[in-house]
Amino acid sequence: MFTSLQVPSQCSEVHYEVELGVVISTGGKNIPESSALSHVGGYTLALDMTARDIQSAAKKKGYPWSVAKGYDTFCPVSSFIEKDKIVLDDCRLWLKVDGETKQDGSTKNMIYSVPFLISYISGIFTLEPGDVIITGTPEGVGPVKPGQTLTAGIEGVLEMTFPVVSA
Amino acid sequence: MFTSLQVPSQCSEVHYEVELGVVISTGGKNIPESSALSHVGGYTLALDMTARDIQSAAKKKGYPWSVAKGYDTFCPVSSFIEKDKIVLDDCRLWLKVDGETKQDGSTKNMIYSVPFLISYISGIFTLEPGDVIITGTPEGVGPVKPGQTLTAGIEGVLEMTFPVVSA
Repeated sequence: MFTSLQVPSQCSEVHYEVELGVVISTGGKNIPESSALSHVGGYTLALDMTARDIQSAAKKKGYPWSVAKGYDTFCPVSSFIEKDKIVLDDCRLWLKVDGETKQDGSTKNMIYSVPFLISYISGIFTLEPGDVIITGTPEGVGPVKPGQTLTAGIEGVLEMTFPVVSA
Repeated sequence: MFTSLQVPSQCSEVHYEVELGVVISTGGKNIPESSALSHVGGYTLALDMTARDIQSAAKKKGYPWSVAKGYDTFCPVSSFIEKDKIVLDDCRLWLKVDGETKQDGSTKNMIYSVPFLISYISGIFTLEPGDVIITGTPEGVGPVKPGQTLTAGIEGVLEMTFPVVSA
């Protein structure tokens, strides 16, 4: 259990990415888009932290990126959000660094819809209850430094705050 | 629970990679190489199945590879192997397709030793009890097709067999 976001000493540039998380309640394989939302139990707010320097170096070499998103504390999520609290057609997500708005977008601008993502992913592997799908971030990603404070929210639903520390 | 290896319809080339799996019993962060083996509870034999076509396409684009190793049934492991059954300095791993030997190597030729891997990985994220680290494969990887049978083993310890089916 972590209560702060760590910037590891190995990383020179750690970026925030605020994202909607989809919590799967009923698993399945090859789920059609038309029934995908019946597999959703609720939502969560996620910060998909990314070591951009590590990711960029891996991309150039054709190496896997997993490590760039895998440091301790890199994907904090909020408490569980009941399904009927989120209006998927237009859910506003925002992120502030030290109180200054950096990201402010709506799920209406998603490149891939939640039903598409569930259908696509379940065509690759079986989804299980409790799996969380994070769904991509609005414009405005950028670096965060130790000493700053990240606050992210879903308008009208919840917000969460993390101090950023070095590790 | 799966008892066969699936070749997904989306993949034109699925490769076997026989590997030693290391089962962590005591977690930790920044574990030094000198004490790394005290964090090992035992071992397992793993088949790190890889959709080589999907992986190659992702590498070219600088995309993540996770999906290429993430299809259902892609990393079967054997039963748990007690720690004292494995001689890490020279443990022989082999793999046969339809009875024909395709891979036959020893851990003495590993590029990265087990203590190095534990130390390196735990420098990125905290290892937890039950985590399994797979450690790389000997030469001889190649494709497998539905209808074939994969058998893999650790000399003198165990072997496991999987029929290959289409999915």
